[in-house]
Amino acid sequence: MDNRYAIVLAAGKGTRMKSSLYKVLHPVCGKPMVQHVVDQLLSLQLENIITIVGHGAEQVEEQIGEDSQFIIQEEQLGTGHAVQQADPVLSGKKGTTLVVCGDTPLLTSETLENLIQYHEQEEAKVTLLTAHADNPAGYGRIVRNEDQDVARIVEQKDASSDEKLIQEINTGTYCFDNEALFEALQLVSNDNAQGEYYLPDVIEILKNQGEKISAYQTDDVTETLGVNDRVALSKAERAMQSRINEYHMRSGVTLIDPDNTYIGLGVAIGQDAVVYPGCTISGHTTIAGGAEIGPHTEIKDCTIGQDTTIKQSVAHDSHIGARVKIGPYAHIRPASELADDVKIGNFVETKKAAFGEGSKASHLSYIGDAKVGSGVNIGCGTITVNYDGENKHLTTIEDGAFIGCNSNLVAPVTIGEGSYVAAGSTITNDVPDSSLSIARSRQTNKEGYVEKLKNKKND
Amino acid sequence: MDNRYAIVLAAGKGTRMKSSLYKVLHPVCGKPMVQHVVDQLLSLQLENIITIVGHGAEQVEEQIGEDSQFIIQEEQLGTGHAVQQADPVLSGKKGTTLVVCGDTPLLTSETLENLIQYHEQEEAKVTLLTAHADNPAGYGRIVRNEDQDVARIVEQKDASSDEKLIQEINTGTYCFDNEALFEALQLVSNDNAQGEYYLPDVIEILKNQGEKISAYQTDDVTETLGVNDRVALSKAERAMQSRINEYHMRSGVTLIDPDNTYIGLGVAIGQDAVVYPGCTISGHTTIAGGAEIGPHTEIKDCTIGQDTTIKQSVAHDSHIGARVKIGPYAHIRPASELADDVKIGNFVETKKAAFGEGSKASHLSYIGDAKVGSGVNIGCGTITVNYDGENKHLTTIEDGAFIGCNSNLVAPVTIGEGSYVAAGSTITNDVPDSSLSIARSRQTNKEGYVEKLKNKKND
Amino acid sequence: MDNRYAIVLAAGKGTRMKSSLYKVLHPVCGKPMVQHVVDQLLSLQLENIITIVGHGAEQVEEQIGEDSQFIIQEEQLGTGHAVQQADPVLSGKKGTTLVVCGDTPLLTSETLENLIQYHEQEEAKVTLLTAHADNPAGYGRIVRNEDQDVARIVEQKDASSDEKLIQEINTGTYCFDNEALFEALQLVSNDNAQGEYYLPDVIEILKNQGEKISAYQTDDVTETLGVNDRVALSKAERAMQSRINEYHMRSGVTLIDPDNTYIGLGVAIGQDAVVYPGCTISGHTTIAGGAEIGPHTEIKDCTIGQDTTIKQSVAHDSHIGARVKIGPYAHIRPASELADDVKIGNFVETKKAAFGEGSKASHLSYIGDAKVGSGVNIGCGTITVNYDGENKHLTTIEDGAFIGCNSNLVAPVTIGEGSYVAAGSTITNDVPDSSLSIARSRQTNKEGYVEKLKNKKND
Repeated sequence: MDNRYAIVLAAGKGTRMKSSLYKVLHPVCGKPMVQHVVDQLLSLQLENIITIVGHGAEQVEEQIGEDSQFIIQEEQLGTGHAVQQADPVLSGKKGTTLVVCGDTPLLTSETLENLIQYHEQEEAKVTLLTAHADNPAGYGRIVRNEDQDVARIVEQKDASSDEKLIQEINTGTYCFDNEALFEALQLVSNDNAQGEYYLPDVIEILKNQGEKISAYQTDDVTETLGVNDRVALSKAERAMQSRINEYHMRSGVTLIDPDNTYIGLGVAIGQDAVVYPGCTISGHTTIAGGAEIGPHTEIKDCTIGQDTTIKQSVAHDSHIGARVKIGPYAHIRPASELADDVKIGNFVETKKAAFGEGSKASHLSYIGDAKVGSGVNIGCGTITVNYDGENKHLTTIEDGAFIGCNSNLVAPVTIGEGSYVAAGSTITNDVPDSSLSIARSRQTNKEGYVEKLKNKKND
Repeated sequence: MDNRYAIVLAAGKGTRMKSSLYKVLHPVCGKPMVQHVVDQLLSLQLENIITIVGHGAEQVEEQIGEDSQFIIQEEQLGTGHAVQQADPVLSGKKGTTLVVCGDTPLLTSETLENLIQYHEQEEAKVTLLTAHADNPAGYGRIVRNEDQDVARIVEQKDASSDEKLIQEINTGTYCFDNEALFEALQLVSNDNAQGEYYLPDVIEILKNQGEKISAYQTDDVTETLGVNDRVALSKAERAMQSRINEYHMRSGVTLIDPDNTYIGLGVAIGQDAVVYPGCTISGHTTIAGGAEIGPHTEIKDCTIGQDTTIKQSVAHDSHIGARVKIGPYAHIRPASELADDVKIGNFVETKKAAFGEGSKASHLSYIGDAKVGSGVNIGCGTITVNYDGENKHLTTIEDGAFIGCNSNLVAPVTIGEGSYVAAGSTITNDVPDSSLSIARSRQTNKEGYVEKLKNKKND
Repeated sequence: MDNRYAIVLAAGKGTRMKSSLYKVLHPVCGKPMVQHVVDQLLSLQLENIITIVGHGAEQVEEQIGEDSQFIIQEEQLGTGHAVQQADPVLSGKKGTTLVVCGDTPLLTSETLENLIQYHEQEEAKVTLLTAHADNPAGYGRIVRNEDQDVARIVEQKDASSDEKLIQEINTGTYCFDNEALFEALQLVSNDNAQGEYYLPDVIEILKNQGEKISAYQTDDVTETLGVNDRVALSKAERAMQSRINEYHMRSGVTLIDPDNTYIGLGVAIGQDAVVYPGCTISGHTTIAGGAEIGPHTEIKDCTIGQDTTIKQSVAHDSHIGARVKIGPYAHIRPASELADDVKIGNFVETKKAAFGEGSKASHLSYIGDAKVGSGVNIGCGTITVNYDGENKHLTTIEDGAFIGCNSNLVAPVTIGEGSYVAAGSTITNDVPDSSLSIARSRQTNKEGYVEKLKNKKND
């Protein structure tokens, strides 16, 4: 195997994105486009990955980090000029250089590996990655000669009517003989309307030198999609999402509507889990088998246990056990730790709250900065008064306690094991174990009051 | 008309589903696949439906119940072997036998009836159900002879390049002359790579005997989809959903986005109802005309009256009258009975609660185990304290009562007709009619308190 | 340029819509179909727009208003008869008359302008708007002669197998020489199966008179979609939505899933805003750059400031400032005015409520009919008791106040600047500045109560 190098073109501004965010940093399924490209390159056996940066250089470097070497292209004078920036590092070296754009997030390492291997077998000076397009309009067409090598690339505007029927298109990804590449780049001129140095000119130069130009054709044209505006970005998002969703379905996860399910790249889901429509699952989330998620649930950075159900809810940065029932309309905020068999019902918010096994907060409650034991029943409307305007304080509810409805637990406070707080109480002092705590007024009925009021009004 | 029989092949394990649930029991639009198949067969005039079961036999039998006879295939030795299990029941009988797979949930009785009728008219020994496929790659192609009968079925791997262009594919659904079928099955061998007895071998045997093999082609290839993994399952779900949604649209229901609307098979919806995107409507649900459902509403097993609107909410097992307004973010739990013109607003939960005409619970309330009269106004934050840790108790709120905000009604308790509960009260005793009930503390203002506190802190 | 006229056919009943709403009034992306048509016509330079009305005439006229002249077709005797109703106004006038159906909401003024200009250049008596259809089945095919003029239109049922291959279809939109149109209409008979006067007969009459019939073909067949039932209505909705969404994406808005994003025609969105899946944004809504909307958020008639985020919430008729954080599960009801940096958290409802800069209501609150200063912290469970059963009253919370959890503020009431309301208080009287107000009962702990209760039960 020859030495292998890769150059990632990531210096363009991306004007058509109409964005203050640099083009290759726009995310697809939560990951910046250029990071998708670099991640795929990392699984190939490359000597060196060189990313050519320009607009937004600093942010791109920060994004990719140590996975690549960076070379700054000070002025953007075309793709040929961009590649030429790598000359000080690569020129004169023997081997194969892959040139790939930072805005092609769907390319897979399999396809790139196939391209490189084909290039090496063919012993060509250049090998183009081409694709079969059902509708090739607008793309450069590949005209092959009798040896099936590339005779030339014809742009849409220059194509004859016969050439327009060609469905093999140029994708803009190339494999070069490294030495030939940098020698030919010396000969590329900017004598054209835009005054730019174009990388494809290298191909014509090598062709004219009598070198062999080959093409490796992939069937999956989607993979070669380049993103120049947000319409293309949405297509890339959809294609990447389909790929992720298919992976999960083939692994034994039922997605009721994969077209309406948004799963990130870092998500693991167990067998026989079901994801209902309208879910967004992202970050480092792990969902165990048999779980039922959704509809319309958002989960980020959570671990979720076996057979847990989360309906119409939002959960972030939390650990959720097995057989937990959440929702609809619950909000599990960061640092919630829900043990097995916990129930968090409608209009309940938890935050920095640990719930022991089998505890329940079924309705209209806020449990924040709290340590809840096991077998606790938190009545409807219970609020942990964790904030005094300056600091947050801890509420402790011990095993088997029963908190009556509409209670305020003014932290710091502890409700002892097995104790009972009467509905409507504001608890400011600790409640010992097995006690009843009550803090409310006696009821007075003013009979006939409504009649009197009416009479008075009618006076 | 000949006697007609059907054999449903439902014994396979479905390894590619990667599931502990037996393949044919995976649901499509809420109904197990094999039940879809049997339900379609039930509307044909069949002497007998025989389901061949194996893996998960017990659950399949329990699912289908008395609609079919069951025969267990102890070992899964191929489709021919599976059909042969019906030999004791069917062999030697005159008539037509339909063989259909339990994993083809989209087949309609119309198509099956057409297939049988075509078979009977053609007087063939076998009639294949075939379909026109735009992209036939991977399927067995139907090669027809000059009489338009089937010359042979060519598998993808054996197809010549001409044969690969054939767009008529075999679907795996067959009609047989019953006697010929079981005679030929005796001759099928397992002399092949997998060591299995294949049903399609019957066709070649009959062909070699000089019998007529015909094919009935359907235009709708979608209908013939067989489900072997969850990617196909999601396609079947989508196709079935499209069919259901088209039915409702043609009946006069507006679906803003049918691709994002999930309606079960047992749902009836009246004319001029509108369903907004993201709704799941399932079970035995009836929605009257003029209703507006969604967006993002989940309804199961409810009856919903004329011109009612339910926005961003969940409702299960409940009766909801006309002109009711629900949501956004309400949860109507089972056994809620909402009379006409009721309003259930945001963050309100009802459960086992009857509301009389025109009563309202507009915000942040839980009304469970309650009987609410008509014209009642339930203030924001009202809670029926229905659970004492051991039992649930009833709250009764009589006609025209007004419940102040943040009240607790500690059940069992009755609020009399026209009475008024002051905001912030915890009511533990019955309130007579036309009374004012109050249970709260007097307000004390500690002037300058905040200043003093600050000074103290700064000390 | 000749004088130009347009006739909109809007008299049909639309039986297949199965609706009590008149067909052309069914909305597409929130706007009635016929209004879409008229709005496109308004940007052409027309002398006169005449809408032929019949069924539902009154509502159609009310919808369109002064943008058109209306002529009533008392009996619906066919499209030719409909156009003839304009005879008293248009016959004998020189110029060009565009005839367009009121159920083609996707036609653009660009295409209609191109059609008219082509017609005028060609100096034809009629010019048909035709379209290229990938699947032309069911449509009238355009047979052209050697001059590329229209030889005839062949209906599906009359087409030869060669003619069935023609992919250019008639769309039902026409440009006529006005004088020729009304003269030919005199000759149209109703001697056919339906006994109706058909507009396309005019074309044959003119053809037979030796006149030139031309055709202007558009590539975008979607634009010519006519809506006759709700399946077609849903397709029109989807196509219009795609058009709107593409506009926003090209303007610099990221739509994570444009197929699951519902944006109305009157919505403006700034650069680098992100809209997550499942959002409905309608009415006169303006969203500033950098805002993040959704998932599953409904916004109608709001202005929303820079970098504001609204997650899983509903907001109507409100002004929302910059860097505001809303949701998940918040409900911003009409006349909410949220200044910059406000936070409205989960299960919070606002209505007729002004919030000053940086104020927060983070959980489970209802703030209605309220004026909230800046830097206010509204604790969890706070309720403005704005309704006494007869009238709504105002709650005023001045700058820097801190409202403890589960408080009731019984309006009319003012909480003074910098004051503090203790958790669980029901406030009925004004609170002076910098004061602590408290209205709750002292806590009593009954130790051993639970043990005694158990013992008692076990007796």
